[in-house]
Amino acid sequence: MTSQFGPSYVRDIAPYVAGKPISEVAREFGLDEARIVKLASNENPLGMPESAKQAMVKAANELGRYPDSNAFELKAALAARHDVPADWITLGNGSNDILEIAAHAIVEKGQSVVYAQYSFAVYALATQGLGARAIVVPAVKYGHDLDAMLAAITADTRLIFVANPNNPTGTYIEGPALEAFLDKVPRDVVVVLDEAYTEYLAPQKRYDSIAWVRRYPNLLVSRTFSKAYGLAGLRVGFAIAQPELTDLLNRLRQPFNVNTLAQAAAIAALNDKAFLEESAALNAKGYRVLTEAFGRLGLEYVPSDGNFVLVRVGSDDNAGNRVNLGLLKQGVIVRPVGNYGLPQWLRVTIGLQAENEAFIAALEKTLAAAS
Amino acid sequence: MTSQFGPSYVRDIAPYVAGKPISEVAREFGLDEARIVKLASNENPLGMPESAKQAMVKAANELGRYPDSNAFELKAALAARHDVPADWITLGNGSNDILEIAAHAIVEKGQSVVYAQYSFAVYALATQGLGARAIVVPAVKYGHDLDAMLAAITADTRLIFVANPNNPTGTYIEGPALEAFLDKVPRDVVVVLDEAYTEYLAPQKRYDSIAWVRRYPNLLVSRTFSKAYGLAGLRVGFAIAQPELTDLLNRLRQPFNVNTLAQAAAIAALNDKAFLEESAALNAKGYRVLTEAFGRLGLEYVPSDGNFVLVRVGSDDNAGNRVNLGLLKQGVIVRPVGNYGLPQWLRVTIGLQAENEAFIAALEKTLAAAS
Repeated sequence: MTSQFGPSYVRDIAPYVAGKPISEVAREFGLDEARIVKLASNENPLGMPESAKQAMVKAANELGRYPDSNAFELKAALAARHDVPADWITLGNGSNDILEIAAHAIVEKGQSVVYAQYSFAVYALATQGLGARAIVVPAVKYGHDLDAMLAAITADTRLIFVANPNNPTGTYIEGPALEAFLDKVPRDVVVVLDEAYTEYLAPQKRYDSIAWVRRYPNLLVSRTFSKAYGLAGLRVGFAIAQPELTDLLNRLRQPFNVNTLAQAAAIAALNDKAFLEESAALNAKGYRVLTEAFGRLGLEYVPSDGNFVLVRVGSDDNAGNRVNLGLLKQGVIVRPVGNYGLPQWLRVTIGLQAENEAFIAALEKTLAAAS
Repeated sequence: MTSQFGPSYVRDIAPYVAGKPISEVAREFGLDEARIVKLASNENPLGMPESAKQAMVKAANELGRYPDSNAFELKAALAARHDVPADWITLGNGSNDILEIAAHAIVEKGQSVVYAQYSFAVYALATQGLGARAIVVPAVKYGHDLDAMLAAITADTRLIFVANPNNPTGTYIEGPALEAFLDKVPRDVVVVLDEAYTEYLAPQKRYDSIAWVRRYPNLLVSRTFSKAYGLAGLRVGFAIAQPELTDLLNRLRQPFNVNTLAQAAAIAALNDKAFLEESAALNAKGYRVLTEAFGRLGLEYVPSDGNFVLVRVGSDDNAGNRVNLGLLKQGVIVRPVGNYGLPQWLRVTIGLQAENEAFIAALEKTLAAAS
């Protein structure tokens, strides 16, 4: 619908396309909700940790009250965990909120933002919502080309988004390469390093981005409790940056952006090391199951360090939608990525063993029917 | 802290000052949390309705999943209640989110926004966060001067905020006056009518703002579940507007801005007519108790149609802070409003009978000590 209201850059936004909720697919396809497998939104298939549930129950008596605007206890827990002062932390209503607040705090209309082709859709949305100019740097092997991103910086560039691992492709940049990149970025350009999936990295692939935050005043690291921590439905993410940047973000942050239960649950999840390890182990096992099946089926996939895999389900540009529909009819929800310019691909979240198997069976059936 | 990053209009934002949380006052003043009375944030003293708690428990198994981005069930419930299609509704992370999204969707840098002196602080924050120009129209008897607001509209005005009842003053505009105002606002200027406290209006003071939404494509009505509905800690608010405006807001809305529990609890609260009536009755009774005490103590107050009263606690410009400190030391938290340009006043939320009495006793003691 065209509108007489608002700036043209707002009117031109194509809204975010979320993974289809189970209830919606049940309604649309006449299926039983209990039989639907959802592997569409990179959620933790174990759900929320029991520790977080218990913490939530304790906090549930206070819900007539506003949340603690400064999130004293959650910030203290995060500060202790990451060995930074509490005033280096900004909380968000999911890391989506962090990404939006950061862009809004740093960039104004007409300035430019650099990010990679095939990187997270919210970078484009946040940029467009400000009337800023997107400089989209072509991907190499579906991942970030850091040298090209450096070269793409112009005089009006204020912000660079880097996702590691990247969603929806699962690609990963090694620590030393990222560090060399940060060292070359002009000091007046802010880098938002989006580490939504960092907890899934294999031990030998980990790097200490918080040490870089101590070194670079123009670096902001974004994390979330929506993935490995299993709290997607509660909405909580956070940023770590030096006080100069953090102060700026907190001027724009809505004062009660993180609800009371999210604050309580996040503290518990943060301390639940066993749950995190179980989640990572389950994910590593499921990754092998899915990629072995893709190999068997002759399907190309992008090696992933996240909790999802991008798989090419056909060689024509309707393949993603066609196979997606075939899966939906069988009650399996994955994510088509045509809106990312990847119409031949689907992104599938790594689920429980039974969910992975159901997806593989439905995929085989769909591909067989099409051939 | 000055920053090299970000637009100057972001750097110049003075962040929102929230009511002090009970835990913070306990820490600062060495008090027992259980003995602290918080009348600082216009929360419902009855807390969350039991019906909403039960709905929340049912939804708590799904928290590893993202919330329904389109909030199918909550929108259906709101649409039925207000007799509008679901695509007339925008959901927010509290109505704070609605106010921010609306401003961002409508206004760009250099354009102007009209609102009244002594009206809700978020109007100023949202305006400044966009680099827009605030046209603050002097209040009359602490309330909106609608004629002056009309006269203040300039060629670059894109948005007018009207709060009814207004926070922090509690003033109220009668329906016919509002309707006449809406009729005179240019059709290319959007009016955000913020009705956060509308559920507290006495029956004879109510008016049908949704009927005006049907008539005026430039009107957006904002409501919240944080006040009479008792869900402040969960964060949920909503807007009703015609599809042209609603579509614009939804382009900017973060896709998962309303968490799963908030959606479930809001549906239950919306249907809990008994709780709403109990809340309004308790509030009306508490209003009489507080204002009678103010009369007895010779304190000026602004007649209020909200769940709070603005009371003048002294005639010097340190009175608000001084009396506030005296109350804090006795474990009573109210809201100083010096940041609203009302340094001689305090805003007190109407609480439970015992809370109102504790506040009055602490106030008397503080005033007696000062005289």
